[in-house]
Amino acid sequence: MSLVIVGSLAFDTIETPRERRERIVGGSGTYCALAASFFTKPKVVGVVGRDFPRRTIDLLKSRKIDLSGLQIKPGKTFHWEGRYGSDPNQRTTIKTDLNVFQDFKPELPPSYRDADILFLANIDPDLAGPVFGQLRKRPALVALDTIRFWIDTKPEALFRTLAGVDIFFANDEEVKLLGEDINLIKAGRRLLRLGPRIIIVKKGEHGALVFTKDFVFGTLAHPCEDVVDPTGAGDCFAGGFLGSLDRAGRRGPAEIRKATVFGSVIASFAIEDFGIDRFKTLTRREIDKRYRDFKRLVAF
Amino acid sequence: MSLVIVGSLAFDTIETPRERRERIVGGSGTYCALAASFFTKPKVVGVVGRDFPRRTIDLLKSRKIDLSGLQIKPGKTFHWEGRYGSDPNQRTTIKTDLNVFQDFKPELPPSYRDADILFLANIDPDLAGPVFGQLRKRPALVALDTIRFWIDTKPEALFRTLAGVDIFFANDEEVKLLGEDINLIKAGRRLLRLGPRIIIVKKGEHGALVFTKDFVFGTLAHPCEDVVDPTGAGDCFAGGFLGSLDRAGRRGPAEIRKATVFGSVIASFAIEDFGIDRFKTLTRREIDKRYRDFKRLVAF
Repeated sequence: MSLVIVGSLAFDTIETPRERRERIVGGSGTYCALAASFFTKPKVVGVVGRDFPRRTIDLLKSRKIDLSGLQIKPGKTFHWEGRYGSDPNQRTTIKTDLNVFQDFKPELPPSYRDADILFLANIDPDLAGPVFGQLRKRPALVALDTIRFWIDTKPEALFRTLAGVDIFFANDEEVKLLGEDINLIKAGRRLLRLGPRIIIVKKGEHGALVFTKDFVFGTLAHPCEDVVDPTGAGDCFAGGFLGSLDRAGRRGPAEIRKATVFGSVIASFAIEDFGIDRFKTLTRREIDKRYRDFKRLVAF
Repeated sequence: MSLVIVGSLAFDTIETPRERRERIVGGSGTYCALAASFFTKPKVVGVVGRDFPRRTIDLLKSRKIDLSGLQIKPGKTFHWEGRYGSDPNQRTTIKTDLNVFQDFKPELPPSYRDADILFLANIDPDLAGPVFGQLRKRPALVALDTIRFWIDTKPEALFRTLAGVDIFFANDEEVKLLGEDINLIKAGRRLLRLGPRIIIVKKGEHGALVFTKDFVFGTLAHPCEDVVDPTGAGDCFAGGFLGSLDRAGRRGPAEIRKATVFGSVIASFAIEDFGIDRFKTLTRREIDKRYRDFKRLVAF
């Protein structure tokens, strides 16, 4: 059991229809590791500047997240600014300052190099090769998430990386774009032919669909009455999914279905507060209760 | 067991990104009755012109649909023209010729007046009163569906009708509009306070959500690889739902959950072909198979 997450740790400035928050902690790696930490002890590879808050490091450590792969560099932490409209599925990027993330060279400490599950969370697809090169053996599962930015700017590198991964997380827009079909199901099935054995389509408030060669699984999102900040929901979904799979040990259809629901449940908590705030109080007991409630909600 | 459906029988001219079809048979009453006919023997109240095809009447009769409440008037049948973009959830109305539907005065034959379930499918909310007035007793369930047109043009009449119904079907846009909240869950719960005991939110390809005072139920849509014509999906959903409930006799949480899935399954067949064409060959066996497949798809 070990899950290695390569991703960003960042400051986010977020505007929702109700509120604006300046420079709160975010980042795909941060969200994903926090979500996974309710199931396993994730190991993080990333980079921050000297301005990254000590108390966030302490929070991550208190959740048993291994930070030996986190580089602290002179300079500023990655900063993203975005705005949400009334539809939380739609957001506009206002500014992206890569800062120390610009020259990020992932370095895996020796204790990371036997990872069972490796997750490349929204990083430059050109960094995949150097990460693979540091591993002692091929992980049982390699997972990849991406963003529109890499599809637009580095499609060849992305397709090359995609060919070597087992699990690909993407939202519906990205699946339709990469699968070259306006029908999500057809596009999803098509992506299966590009390499991954499992395609996980994150549909935000509409849930998630999982395509594999053997079965399709779908789940709703937990109905959320108060979406405070949708940032990081997808990263938390991936973190919960992979954390749950890592904990389960086995990776058959039953475990994949369960992991999908855990991913969805963790994401439903994350969006109840700004940034990573909800993780400061969240407990495994709350997660298990919502999992059971959700099971009742969809039973027929 | 009896289900009375008051709705439109129409010609539709439909343009999808792939094809255009002129004056094919549609209408909320037509779709709804066909869908319901796989579970019960629905009774239709509606009006058509002399141009309405004999072969459609024959098809409806062959499905054991009671047409004694169907008026055939001199003049032309209601004609709607619309266009779909690449997102089948979005459509534009190009033309609406009400024709004989303009002066539609629903008349319930004596055999209809003890209905167990009454469904007002997208009709002018001002017609609800005259329909209720013809019933011998209050049906066990009164259900209402509406369209944006009535929300915009006759909101008072609509809210008045809503106060007297048990079940309200609406799509997510309509629920947010009537429930005055951008959050679907909050808007749905708010609608429960306006009268209906059950609010059913039709989310198209994203499934459906059911709100009651006692429980919430959600289901995905059956993943459809080939959406040929989304017209009538909502009407078929309502028809399958109400037909299944009428057949079940009981109307508790278990029957409501099952009815929702049947509604969704029937709708998933309807969109596989233009207009009502899919109903020409559909069998109960196919419906039951897809129901079982769907159950496996969402199991965890």
